[in-house]
Amino acid sequence: MFEWTTGGYDAALREQIGRWLAEDIGSGDITTETTIQRGSKSKAVIHVKDTGIIAGIPVARLVFDVVDPELTFRALAEDGDSVTKGTVIIEVEGSTHSILTGERLALNLMQRLSGIATKTKAFVDALQGLPVRLVDTRKTTPGHRLLEKYAVRVGGGSNHRFGLYDAVMIKDNHIKGAGGITEAVSSARRQIPHTMKIEVETESLAQVEEVLDCGADIIMLDNMPHDMMREAVARIKARSPHVIVEASGGVTLSTIHGIAACGVDVISVGGLTYSFQALDISLDLNEKKEVGRG
Amino acid sequence: MFEWTTGGYDAALREQIGRWLAEDIGSGDITTETTIQRGSKSKAVIHVKDTGIIAGIPVARLVFDVVDPELTFRALAEDGDSVTKGTVIIEVEGSTHSILTGERLALNLMQRLSGIATKTKAFVDALQGLPVRLVDTRKTTPGHRLLEKYAVRVGGGSNHRFGLYDAVMIKDNHIKGAGGITEAVSSARRQIPHTMKIEVETESLAQVEEVLDCGADIIMLDNMPHDMMREAVARIKARSPHVIVEASGGVTLSTIHGIAACGVDVISVGGLTYSFQALDISLDLNEKKEVGRG
Amino acid sequence: MFEWTTGGYDAALREQIGRWLAEDIGSGDITTETTIQRGSKSKAVIHVKDTGIIAGIPVARLVFDVVDPELTFRALAEDGDSVTKGTVIIEVEGSTHSILTGERLALNLMQRLSGIATKTKAFVDALQGLPVRLVDTRKTTPGHRLLEKYAVRVGGGSNHRFGLYDAVMIKDNHIKGAGGITEAVSSARRQIPHTMKIEVETESLAQVEEVLDCGADIIMLDNMPHDMMREAVARIKARSPHVIVEASGGVTLSTIHGIAACGVDVISVGGLTYSFQALDISLDLNEKKEVGRG
Amino acid sequence: MFEWTTGGYDAALREQIGRWLAEDIGSGDITTETTIQRGSKSKAVIHVKDTGIIAGIPVARLVFDVVDPELTFRALAEDGDSVTKGTVIIEVEGSTHSILTGERLALNLMQRLSGIATKTKAFVDALQGLPVRLVDTRKTTPGHRLLEKYAVRVGGGSNHRFGLYDAVMIKDNHIKGAGGITEAVSSARRQIPHTMKIEVETESLAQVEEVLDCGADIIMLDNMPHDMMREAVARIKARSPHVIVEASGGVTLSTIHGIAACGVDVISVGGLTYSFQALDISLDLNEKKEVGRG
Amino acid sequence: MFEWTTGGYDAALREQIGRWLAEDIGSGDITTETTIQRGSKSKAVIHVKDTGIIAGIPVARLVFDVVDPELTFRALAEDGDSVTKGTVIIEVEGSTHSILTGERLALNLMQRLSGIATKTKAFVDALQGLPVRLVDTRKTTPGHRLLEKYAVRVGGGSNHRFGLYDAVMIKDNHIKGAGGITEAVSSARRQIPHTMKIEVETESLAQVEEVLDCGADIIMLDNMPHDMMREAVARIKARSPHVIVEASGGVTLSTIHGIAACGVDVISVGGLTYSFQALDISLDLNEKKEVGRG
Amino acid sequence: MFEWTTGGYDAALREQIGRWLAEDIGSGDITTETTIQRGSKSKAVIHVKDTGIIAGIPVARLVFDVVDPELTFRALAEDGDSVTKGTVIIEVEGSTHSILTGERLALNLMQRLSGIATKTKAFVDALQGLPVRLVDTRKTTPGHRLLEKYAVRVGGGSNHRFGLYDAVMIKDNHIKGAGGITEAVSSARRQIPHTMKIEVETESLAQVEEVLDCGADIIMLDNMPHDMMREAVARIKARSPHVIVEASGGVTLSTIHGIAACGVDVISVGGLTYSFQALDISLDLNEKKEVGRG
Repeated sequence: MFEWTTGGYDAALREQIGRWLAEDIGSGDITTETTIQRGSKSKAVIHVKDTGIIAGIPVARLVFDVVDPELTFRALAEDGDSVTKGTVIIEVEGSTHSILTGERLALNLMQRLSGIATKTKAFVDALQGLPVRLVDTRKTTPGHRLLEKYAVRVGGGSNHRFGLYDAVMIKDNHIKGAGGITEAVSSARRQIPHTMKIEVETESLAQVEEVLDCGADIIMLDNMPHDMMREAVARIKARSPHVIVEASGGVTLSTIHGIAACGVDVISVGGLTYSFQALDISLDLNEKKEVGRG
Repeated sequence: MFEWTTGGYDAALREQIGRWLAEDIGSGDITTETTIQRGSKSKAVIHVKDTGIIAGIPVARLVFDVVDPELTFRALAEDGDSVTKGTVIIEVEGSTHSILTGERLALNLMQRLSGIATKTKAFVDALQGLPVRLVDTRKTTPGHRLLEKYAVRVGGGSNHRFGLYDAVMIKDNHIKGAGGITEAVSSARRQIPHTMKIEVETESLAQVEEVLDCGADIIMLDNMPHDMMREAVARIKARSPHVIVEASGGVTLSTIHGIAACGVDVISVGGLTYSFQALDISLDLNEKKEVGRG
Repeated sequence: MFEWTTGGYDAALREQIGRWLAEDIGSGDITTETTIQRGSKSKAVIHVKDTGIIAGIPVARLVFDVVDPELTFRALAEDGDSVTKGTVIIEVEGSTHSILTGERLALNLMQRLSGIATKTKAFVDALQGLPVRLVDTRKTTPGHRLLEKYAVRVGGGSNHRFGLYDAVMIKDNHIKGAGGITEAVSSARRQIPHTMKIEVETESLAQVEEVLDCGADIIMLDNMPHDMMREAVARIKARSPHVIVEASGGVTLSTIHGIAACGVDVISVGGLTYSFQALDISLDLNEKKEVGRG
Repeated sequence: MFEWTTGGYDAALREQIGRWLAEDIGSGDITTETTIQRGSKSKAVIHVKDTGIIAGIPVARLVFDVVDPELTFRALAEDGDSVTKGTVIIEVEGSTHSILTGERLALNLMQRLSGIATKTKAFVDALQGLPVRLVDTRKTTPGHRLLEKYAVRVGGGSNHRFGLYDAVMIKDNHIKGAGGITEAVSSARRQIPHTMKIEVETESLAQVEEVLDCGADIIMLDNMPHDMMREAVARIKARSPHVIVEASGGVTLSTIHGIAACGVDVISVGGLTYSFQALDISLDLNEKKEVGRG
Repeated sequence: MFEWTTGGYDAALREQIGRWLAEDIGSGDITTETTIQRGSKSKAVIHVKDTGIIAGIPVARLVFDVVDPELTFRALAEDGDSVTKGTVIIEVEGSTHSILTGERLALNLMQRLSGIATKTKAFVDALQGLPVRLVDTRKTTPGHRLLEKYAVRVGGGSNHRFGLYDAVMIKDNHIKGAGGITEAVSSARRQIPHTMKIEVETESLAQVEEVLDCGADIIMLDNMPHDMMREAVARIKARSPHVIVEASGGVTLSTIHGIAACGVDVISVGGLTYSFQALDISLDLNEKKEVGRG
Repeated sequence: MFEWTTGGYDAALREQIGRWLAEDIGSGDITTETTIQRGSKSKAVIHVKDTGIIAGIPVARLVFDVVDPELTFRALAEDGDSVTKGTVIIEVEGSTHSILTGERLALNLMQRLSGIATKTKAFVDALQGLPVRLVDTRKTTPGHRLLEKYAVRVGGGSNHRFGLYDAVMIKDNHIKGAGGITEAVSSARRQIPHTMKIEVETESLAQVEEVLDCGADIIMLDNMPHDMMREAVARIKARSPHVIVEASGGVTLSTIHGIAACGVDVISVGGLTYSFQALDISLDLNEKKEVGRG
């Protein structure tokens, strides 16, 4: 997993956090501003109310930093840790206004990312010891792709391409539009940078053979029955050992081991990012501090 | 339900769609650009692969319009319709490049919104005939609040406040910070516009009584047992018949009818927007049209 | 008045200040850059040249902070203070370039906000001892609404709704468009969140009665003669004591006391924000400091 | 007066209008959306309720176009026209939602700009027949400079520089910072483009002589008594006939003619843009049209 | 070459053009607005004044469309065409204001892009018949990368990676930072998506061997003498025929053929985008049309 | 030369640097993130590989500050210094990730700006001792105008106008559009601020005379033969000694002295910013520091 670079360049994420805060705050957090005295200071703890893998602590740090750079943020856990009901993961201290204003966004983000990491971990555990990678897809929440793909890595998975821009992925609709697999692959190869790979989605052994004839870097076996998948793997490894084989479609916790056993290199699972259970996380103000002049 | 205003002012949503497209497209849809001939025209159908309530068709229309205003978009269903496997909901016609470039975002959004509408509809059906409103919360996906609250209305639900800015909602942490319910309510009432309501979250009958003493507009009963909830409703309606009573916490399809039977006016359910099953929706290019000069 | 949160979340205001600075500075403050030596340090005082209520000191602080975070800003007064010719309200110290570049915007904003606070204070004083709130309207300067509504609070007034989004306000044109008051109110009530209020504008006792029949939260009496206003207040308080009564139209310093005496709860005055006299405020560099290397 | 270029490049103004609409609309025009049926069409007239010079019709056109490009906008007057109570200046036809959503911003802008044009016209009339230009200053409302300077031209005035970037203007603080007039002028002249002018503010005849010695393009006489002003003009015209003489300070309708008679070329009046009476303008829906499907 | 998608998604480029126009126009094209009558219509031709390959016509089309969508733009040539002094490439017709306001940006962009295409074509011609690709680098002008890489394709070249995000490129500094080639490659391979390639920069045969040992997809030979380069190619093709070999460093029109003859697959030339001669292009208004009301 | 104000207001440039970084980094600097350990610290030196005038050091400082404010940046030279192969101009110390992520943009900018300063210096040297200013034009790279004009000043040149907004420049196309020089000049003079100058481009002595008749501030002699230029200068100085004379067209290092000798005040050279040789500059990580926890 490549790591979270909080010391690095996070301008785009800060900007997005700013927009997300604006969505919630609008013309003002009217409740906090009219019930809590200006200058009030507090300490808050963020704790987990369920069992899972935590992800998003550095994101929560950024949220509170965007709201108010003078807040003190202490992480008591780190992304990837197993947590259970009661685990305190973060302490935040400073302006009560700032803590309450940032609370909802920080929690919403950590709950979602931890849900993804927790689900990913379950799939990764099901593949224990097998020489296969679990990867995500582009079926992420609009506006959340980099974060969700990060959460997949936190859970032990790997990433598929990041968008339409960093790899060629020829699907059914492209094949129709191009007039055939061979046409599509050769047209792409001629035009793309030599630094870029081509993946082709196949649904039959005939298609697999056609891809092998024209030379792709990755072959995806889409929704194939196990025996067809095993046969496809065998033919690919025989003819083009450098080609990576990816399986996709109908992957669940109960089917994934069988699919892996067909010998594929990579299994992609869209549901890692579009169908998960958010992890329940809460913030409590637990110490009233002195009230200074803000 | 207030309706979707496609003829109205949608600048903010268009801007957001632009950012979401940029997230996916980045430096270019390399696959489409290198496999499909420039100027190619196609017709595509979008069809549902599961059973549910469709929501987001006007959003999909905007997505394709932002990608390419020359595409022709025909809705064959409208938001709120029941759909099943095979229902064709949309036809899009025009540049093949534009259709494929907008596909993923349009589907991602409709799948999510339809999932929310479908879940909401199930809860609304469970309340059939009872004088109670089902509402959402602020536990929405960052960046998606207006859309998700719209989907709740499509499913037959109503909305809670839209953000921190349009109603006062005094929760546990505010009460701690203010030094008590009475302090919080009176401080807020003195400062907020006369056009704004105050809601207070309560966990005991004593708190309910204190709120009644100081005069709020809405009282939320948080995670109360049924008998306490019934008693709270009785006291509130006796002393302040104008006050709206809202129940929250632990609401599921099996518990919601019992909660409603306690006599509350409103039931809020965060899970409508943070824990739903996306509805499976697909796009197929199904007619190759002539290739003109783009 | 809810207070100014300088320690809170001010990202949107900073961004706006950035745009306002850009409007003035464009490709560069050519005069300062070519006449004052790089690295020159100065101390400047900001003083008032007229009598009034000062408002906008925290805004000036933000302006200078956006221009140059290394400037030292000392407030010698606070918003709401009475000032007269000669009162020094602020000292700024640091780069001469930065002080002169931020000068005009800081002054323009404080002059306008102080003008609003000063006018509001005069109206509030005219209501001394009466149980009535003075509020503003949406007739604010485009792009300045939050600041101008803040200045009204500084002057002792309260706020009406902040925009089209945080309360329903049914006016003449909506009544025409909906086909009647009853239609408009019932259609709105069915669709809006339970956390939101409805206000209706009326011009006759018949309209007042119709509003009482269908149940709004606030009734505005628009430009009514005093006797009609008194009668309206009497009927409303008799039938629906919870309903808030607001008067509007033709409110001046000489008429406001008479209007208040009719028994209304709230008086709204658009002129607080669109017709005021700016307070004259000036900046003087008064100490030449050493010139270091910038 | 250089003209309004509606067919030209108005991207920046459209963007600003978008932000101003967002300020008012926020999460939605809840009143219009819940009281007026979707698809409702109306015709509205915009009429004046006072006497003055109208300015801002092309801005109102842009506002409605940004809200909804399908609205039909007909101008019945043009900027610079004299109007009185009852003059209908604009008809707008189309979606009732769109008309009501854009109403407030369009009126707020026209009321302010017409107020500026009306005030300017009064000052220009007071200078009738004299060879002197009336100009504005940089004391404009933040975010509104180009519009307000346009309104000054509509009223028959001319413009001073547009910002800190398009002319050098050496004031008291720059002279202090530079160590003298001669130092400031020569330092600026050496560094600025040859396409740019230098103006210097003076308060005494000695300063005027110093400026003449070092060669500026424009000399401003700040708050000088009439006899000193006449003497200054005489000396300047004698020594440097190309230099433009500008008077500033304490200019009112009753003093301006006397100032002009001192022989200055230009009189600048900050109050044109910071102290004016908004012109009262209103919008009425006056025809209910058919309701189609929006 | 993948083609220019004017019918596709060009939002980002339009936004950038808007910013570039703003840089030039600022508070207004004062010359055009004050010398040319409002409503004036003209026809202009854009012609070349030198010999080269034209590139950027679709960009010019976008520029004029952003300025004024009612202009008529007719391309008389297409990107990639050879042009000489006098070749008319574009006619634009419509508002004289709009044409003159967009002129400079359209010309600046086409001149630069045509300069790049022209230089690229010269290098491609020098490789005529050899099985080698000419590619660019990341040494592009900030803010112009996609356009400049497009111009390289127009000139017959291919592209290297588009940014830091779409391929791994391990250079000297990364090797130092990682502690060796083997460490860097294996660390990257473990973490990156399986859809992404790894390229390693080498300066010696020992480094080439180390890369072959650990398995990269592309090996760059940086500034190697010809005999070392030939030897490197031989070893790579022998051990890992799938690996692509790229040469870089000191490539000029006179050296490129010799480098290609060493058997490399790809030659990268930074100078294609940072050291080129702009092609001289001009716009003439050549027909005065009627003046209508704008 | 007016100086670089790093302590001043640099918001717009920071924003632009942010966009330029985003162009390069996109979804992440995948190489650095996967090969260099998180928390790694390094020291890097930036050195020149050629001879010239350095420009852009404060820009590089901003780039690294935008990437990571915790980097330590030490300038060992300053803009305007002569450098040669091996001159170390900057040391940067801190997070290895941040240094490598900002490297390319910082170098790309300094290389370009130094190229411009170097070329400008050569032209300035050719004018040694002559009473003439060397200035740039608007033929700058879109998005880089302020930086490139700054580089011209670093090289000892001066600036022409900054854009279409800060001076009137009547060219051939405006004369055609206005119907003549006299019409254009008088129309402009009537409408522009008195703080703004008018320049007119002329191609013949007859045009020069016409400009003198109607009174412009600057006359540009475009591509005139030397004898015509001398005659033009003589006539202008005789009739209007205040008018500035600018020469333009066909200016090279070998022709510039002859042009200056014709007695013009200013010579403008577009090629300073569109045709220069980038100065070769490089960054080396030269010390591996301890690895802490990031």
